[in-house]
Amino acid sequence: MRVPASIGQRLEEVDTPALLLDLDAFEKNLFTLQSSLKGSAVRVRPHAKTHKCPEIARRQIAAGAVGVCCQKVSEAEAMVEGGIGDVLVSNEVVGAQKIARLAELSRRAQIGVCVDNPENIAALRGSNAELDVYIELEVGMRRCGVAPGEPALTLAKEIAKSKKLRFAGLQAYHGRAQHVRSLAERRTAIQQAQHAVEETKRLFEKNRFPCPIVTGAGSGTYMLEVQSGAWDEIQPGSYVFMDADYAKNEWAAPLPRFAHALFVLSTVMSRPGPDRAIVDAGLKASSVDSGMPTVWQRPGLNYAQASDEHGKIEIAAGAAAPALGEKLLLVPGHCDPTVNLYDWYVCVRAGVVEALWPITARGALQ
Amino acid sequence: MRVPASIGQRLEEVDTPALLLDLDAFEKNLFTLQSSLKGSAVRVRPHAKTHKCPEIARRQIAAGAVGVCCQKVSEAEAMVEGGIGDVLVSNEVVGAQKIARLAELSRRAQIGVCVDNPENIAALRGSNAELDVYIELEVGMRRCGVAPGEPALTLAKEIAKSKKLRFAGLQAYHGRAQHVRSLAERRTAIQQAQHAVEETKRLFEKNRFPCPIVTGAGSGTYMLEVQSGAWDEIQPGSYVFMDADYAKNEWAAPLPRFAHALFVLSTVMSRPGPDRAIVDAGLKASSVDSGMPTVWQRPGLNYAQASDEHGKIEIAAGAAAPALGEKLLLVPGHCDPTVNLYDWYVCVRAGVVEALWPITARGALQ
Repeated sequence: MRVPASIGQRLEEVDTPALLLDLDAFEKNLFTLQSSLKGSAVRVRPHAKTHKCPEIARRQIAAGAVGVCCQKVSEAEAMVEGGIGDVLVSNEVVGAQKIARLAELSRRAQIGVCVDNPENIAALRGSNAELDVYIELEVGMRRCGVAPGEPALTLAKEIAKSKKLRFAGLQAYHGRAQHVRSLAERRTAIQQAQHAVEETKRLFEKNRFPCPIVTGAGSGTYMLEVQSGAWDEIQPGSYVFMDADYAKNEWAAPLPRFAHALFVLSTVMSRPGPDRAIVDAGLKASSVDSGMPTVWQRPGLNYAQASDEHGKIEIAAGAAAPALGEKLLLVPGHCDPTVNLYDWYVCVRAGVVEALWPITARGALQ
Repeated sequence: MRVPASIGQRLEEVDTPALLLDLDAFEKNLFTLQSSLKGSAVRVRPHAKTHKCPEIARRQIAAGAVGVCCQKVSEAEAMVEGGIGDVLVSNEVVGAQKIARLAELSRRAQIGVCVDNPENIAALRGSNAELDVYIELEVGMRRCGVAPGEPALTLAKEIAKSKKLRFAGLQAYHGRAQHVRSLAERRTAIQQAQHAVEETKRLFEKNRFPCPIVTGAGSGTYMLEVQSGAWDEIQPGSYVFMDADYAKNEWAAPLPRFAHALFVLSTVMSRPGPDRAIVDAGLKASSVDSGMPTVWQRPGLNYAQASDEHGKIEIAAGAAAPALGEKLLLVPGHCDPTVNLYDWYVCVRAGVVEALWPITARGALQ
C-alpha cells in the first residue's frame, strides 16, 4: 500500500489525486459540534462510516464522544482493532458468519447492534454474543426498521428472552431528512419521527420495558432531535468533513455551520480549449452519487462532468484559467463514499503535510 | 486484507457483499471477442482499467491480446508488477512525480503514453523515459486530445525532437459513443472519428511522418472501428464483465453479445414490508454513476434505490419475495468503478469458489 505523500511535504508537492484533510477545519468541526451541545445531556456517538479511520474516532472521543457507530461488522472490527472500546453497529446484522464475527467482537469491546426482525433476534440469541440491542424504528426513511408502537414492543419481548442480549433502547434515524434543503421541512420530518419515538416509549413504559437510550440523528438535523428532548444520543457523521451536497442545505440556527475539511487534490492534465480544463480526478476519485464535486475557491471554474478517471472543468468567460499541471482542490459531492476510495488521509495544516492517517475500514463491506 | 471467501466454498456460503466473477461467462467473453476478430489483422489491447487485475490481464494475453491499456501510472505499475510486459497508458501523464514513475517503469517493460500538449511532451523529453508516444486525437468525446490535422502534426514534430521518445501513432477513442443506445447512431459517431483519423494520417504521410498504429475503440463500438479499416488496435475493457448500463445498448451485428460475468452477491438484511426488501449492498458495494444495479434472474425484483450501505429492492405484486437472509445476485450498473471498491474477485464456477484473484490496482489513482 503505497503512501501517497510524505510528512513535511508542501501541499503543492503532493501528487494527485490525493484525499486531503485540512486539520484546522477538522478540529474546528469537532469543537463546533461539542459547543453546539453545551448545556445538553445528550451523548455524542459520531458515525465512523463517514471516516472509516480510528485516528479520527479517537479524536472524536477525546472531544467528548462516548464511542462511535458503524454500519458493518467489518467496520466495527477495524475500529476495535484501532483501540475504540465502544461501538454501535447502527444496522441489522444478518447471516451466520457476520453474527459469529459480531459475537467474537463482543468479547473484546462494548458492542451494540440494531434489530427489526424476530428471526434475526433469535439468531443473535443463539450466537452467545453479549450485545446491547437497539430496536430500529421506521421513522420516515422507508428503509429498515419496524413500525412504532406494538410491533416494536413485540421485538423487545423477543430480546428479553435472552440473558446475554441487553435491550438498550431505540434506534431512530431519519436519513432522508438530512439532505432536505429547507430547515423548516427538516423540522417537520423530525417532529414526525419524535412522535413515533414518544408513542413507542410510552407503550414500553406502560409495559414495564424501560427504554434506556434513544439514539439517532445526523449532521443535517441533530439539533432538532436534541431540542425535541426525545433523543438521548446523536450519531452525526458528515460534520467532521462536510461535502458539496450538505453545503446545499439551508444552515441556520439551531444548527451550527461546519467547515469544509475534506478535499480531493487534483491536477490539470489537459487544456484542450480555452473554455475547459481536464483534471485527473474522476468518479473513481470523488463519488458522484450526490452530485459533482465543486472547485474550491476558484470562481468561474465548474466541475461539470466526471468520467472514470477524468473530470471536465468548464471555465467561465473572464475566469482565471488554470494552467496545465496546476493543482485544484475539489470538495467532494458526497464525503462517505469518496473516503471509501482511498487508503490514506493526507493531513495538512497551513499548507504542509503534518500526518498520514490510514483509512483502515476502507472497503469494509461485510 | 481479509480474504472474502475460501476456495471450495459453495456460492451460498460466501459472505456478502462480495464481488463474484463467473469464470464460465468470463472465459466465454474472452473467446467471443477473439472470435469476432477472426480474419482481421487488428490487434487487441484490452483496457485493464476495467478489471485492475494482472490475473485477468494474463488471461487476455493468453487469448491473443498484445498487452493491455491503463489510465494511470500506478495502474501500469500494478500490471508490470503482475508480469505484464507491454502496457499503454492511454492517457496524458502530467506532473514531475508521475513522469518520473513512468520513466522508471519504462526501464522494466514496454510502456506507451498519450500526449495532447507540447509542454507535456517537453517534460517527457526531459525525463529520460523510453516511451512509445501516441498523440491523442479529439474524435468526438470532448475530453482530452488535440484537434485532428495540423495541431496533431505539430505535436508529432515535438516528439521527434527526442531520441528516447518514439512516435508510435494516434490514440483515437470515442468514449461518448460507447453507451449511445442505438447502433446506427454509434456507427455515425465512429464514422466521424474515422474521418478525423484518416485526415490526420494523410497529413502525416504527406509530411513523411509514418503513423505506425492507430489505437482506440471500446466494447460498445469496436467492430465498427475494425470494419472501418482505420484502426490497427482496439482497447475494449468492459467486454470481459458487461454491466447493466452496457446491457441497455442495442447489441446487433457486427457486435457480438457478451455475457454478464460480474456480480455483487448481497444478502437480504431486512424485510420491512411485503413490497420491499433491503439488501446489504449499497453504493459502496456497487457504483451507481450509470444507474442502479439489476437483480439477476429474479423477475419482479427491482433494485430501486441505493444509500451508502443499503439497497432498496421493490417487490412487484405476485413476484417471488426473497426471505430474510436470502442471497441475491446483482449486476452492477457500471463495472469499472464497482471493481474499484473491492480487493478480491471471488471466482466461481458451477456454484463453487474456484479461485480468489487480488485486484492489485484497486485504488490506483495516481
